Amino acid sequence: MEKRINSVGKVKATSVEFKDELLLECGQVLKNIKLVYETYGELNEDCSNAILVCHALSGNHHSAGYYEDEDERLGWWNALIGPGKAIDTNKYFVVSPNNLGGCHGSTGPSSINSETGEVYGPDFPVITVSDWVNCQVLLADYLNIATWHSVIGGSLGGMQALKWSLAYPDRIKKAGVIAAAPKLSAQNIAFNEVARQAIITDPDFQEGHYQKYNKLPKRGLRLARMVGHITYLSDEAMKEKFGRELKEGKLNFGYGVEFEVESYLRYQGDIFAESFDANTYLLMTKLLDYFDPADKFNGDLVKAFESIKAQVLVVSFTSDWRFSPARSKEISDALLQAGKDVSYLEIDSSHGHDSFLFAEDRYVRSIKAFLGSDS
Amino acid sequence: MEKRINSVGKVKATSVEFKDELLLECGQVLKNIKLVYETYGELNEDCSNAILVCHALSGNHHSAGYYEDEDERLGWWNALIGPGKAIDTNKYFVVSPNNLGGCHGSTGPSSINSETGEVYGPDFPVITVSDWVNCQVLLADYLNIATWHSVIGGSLGGMQALKWSLAYPDRIKKAGVIAAAPKLSAQNIAFNEVARQAIITDPDFQEGHYQKYNKLPKRGLRLARMVGHITYLSDEAMKEKFGRELKEGKLNFGYGVEFEVESYLRYQGDIFAESFDANTYLLMTKLLDYFDPADKFNGDLVKAFESIKAQVLVVSFTSDWRFSPARSKEISDALLQAGKDVSYLEIDSSHGHDSFLFAEDRYVRSIKAFLGSDS
Repeated sequence: MEKRINSVGKVKATSVEFKDELLLECGQVLKNIKLVYETYGELNEDCSNAILVCHALSGNHHSAGYYEDEDERLGWWNALIGPGKAIDTNKYFVVSPNNLGGCHGSTGPSSINSETGEVYGPDFPVITVSDWVNCQVLLADYLNIATWHSVIGGSLGGMQALKWSLAYPDRIKKAGVIAAAPKLSAQNIAFNEVARQAIITDPDFQEGHYQKYNKLPKRGLRLARMVGHITYLSDEAMKEKFGRELKEGKLNFGYGVEFEVESYLRYQGDIFAESFDANTYLLMTKLLDYFDPADKFNGDLVKAFESIKAQVLVVSFTSDWRFSPARSKEISDALLQAGKDVSYLEIDSSHGHDSFLFAEDRYVRSIKAFLGSDS
Repeated sequence: MEKRINSVGKVKATSVEFKDELLLECGQVLKNIKLVYETYGELNEDCSNAILVCHALSGNHHSAGYYEDEDERLGWWNALIGPGKAIDTNKYFVVSPNNLGGCHGSTGPSSINSETGEVYGPDFPVITVSDWVNCQVLLADYLNIATWHSVIGGSLGGMQALKWSLAYPDRIKKAGVIAAAPKLSAQNIAFNEVARQAIITDPDFQEGHYQKYNKLPKRGLRLARMVGHITYLSDEAMKEKFGRELKEGKLNFGYGVEFEVESYLRYQGDIFAESFDANTYLLMTKLLDYFDPADKFNGDLVKAFESIKAQVLVVSFTSDWRFSPARSKEISDALLQAGKDVSYLEIDSSHGHDSFLFAEDRYVRSIKAFLGSDS
């Protein structure tokens, strides 16, 4: 309850359905797109204080505050969004959508395709970060936001902020690119592929038509999440959190839970498998794999960044091995070489990739200063 | 074919069935244990030149040479074992068993339990590195080897070498502990747990009784191997090997193979799932998780090492993130503090954990010198 005191308070999700079609990068067109989103704070008169918060792989629109008095769920970035916090809702109007393809109310694989009257399922097109940004443009237009004060996010969220600054240089003033990478490494793709194969080879996946057959590929989704969780935490964080502690204090010479870390992973996998859509998870991993802004510039990131006008803050965390500081430096180095306005910050943290979710003091102060500075 | 020229040539596996019972660490007793093994080189008159080669997680007794003229399979450590090689078969008599619990001929979960007349399956006891070493003692006795010139192995193989030096200080002169760790970290256990859960939750696993039902949990075994492979290779090695190369040169916006690394992982998973036993794989991961020689000494590795008399060579590889150089240093530091005869070697290599399989020049020369030195 204590955490609520400093939060934006009770929030409510809202939604919008766009009349415009969206031409996707794959060539397909999506119609009647619905986006669910939350907002915190007030939009000022000249609409110049709007901040777009972008979620990562399994995130959603609920990034701050809480829903019901009885419902303990605080938003995923509640530590950073709120009155007086890093993203100060006394000053800014925060917009937090569930992205296209999501499974928390926005149009996605589990939605009804209005053209067929059936659930999209596996026929939902494979979308890209570019498509997400284009879809967020529709939301910005709808909310009368010509230019974002800032676009900010961690991990895949940071990639969206970067893409905004590339694709719509005149509609974004500041980009917060946190715990991200300019593109995935082969190892990153490999972990995603294991997650995908876990889902796809689950007999209940039914080639993606599980809803139609009233099944859920929970086994696969559970494994996918377990693998994911290992990459979100650092070896160090796991050591601090679990060490080699035995759940029952002794070895059992069996395959039940023995070490605390096993119990943690199974639990995380179980709750995720109950609440997330498998086709959406597949999509999200593809969004990550495909992200490569330098691809159309023969791999030249400096050239790719030429169009950027926004002021950029790049943040990395020492214990993050999913997207290590070296990967963030690739972004900031290329921005520097392209003559852009960039600051780079490496935060000491033991939480691994998940560090971006925690309100570490230097991290909070830097984001606050970055957002508050004149650009 | 070129690799054959320098090999030990055509080899044949042999086997022995022990009359002695084996009391396991879990308290159970195993009878009529059969071990399959290969030998290379000649045992000298005073039986003082025998080297025990210990395999890792998914290894077996076939560590050098080849079987048939038409069969291309070279032993897994063929790069290091052979005439004039690091483990010189002109000088040494190399003994290479398939460990207890294995699935390549030695008594294991897929063997018939002589007491019930049925396949052990999931009822095969959970064994430990200690049990492996005790079983190898039976083999040493059978082969008339009172003292090993050396016991050597990589990864889980290195843990066996270490355990030999601890448990039978008078029966081992040199221990080669390569790419190992004094115990698994929480992250190591976590990866093993994902592999286990992939197997156990495969509907074809049938609670381990898949043989009885004529099924094979291939999906699970495939996923387990895919996860494993990511941890065997370094990010760097994956980058060199695959980068972000697209199999068909372009994105397909689908879930077939797109990136080369996906193709590699699926292939590795497929062949493993065809050839390895799931219950054995579960066992092997438990052997790793349980290994902790300091456990009975309140975590004090220096105290644990007091009994050691062997000369020890500890080798690590710079790009190994499964068992990093820091983990090997824990072993060598504790040996030094315990006043033991230890050399530590860190090899520059980009192959990740798999580096111990490659004949890197400095690595080969060091092992050769270590084995050849007077102790």
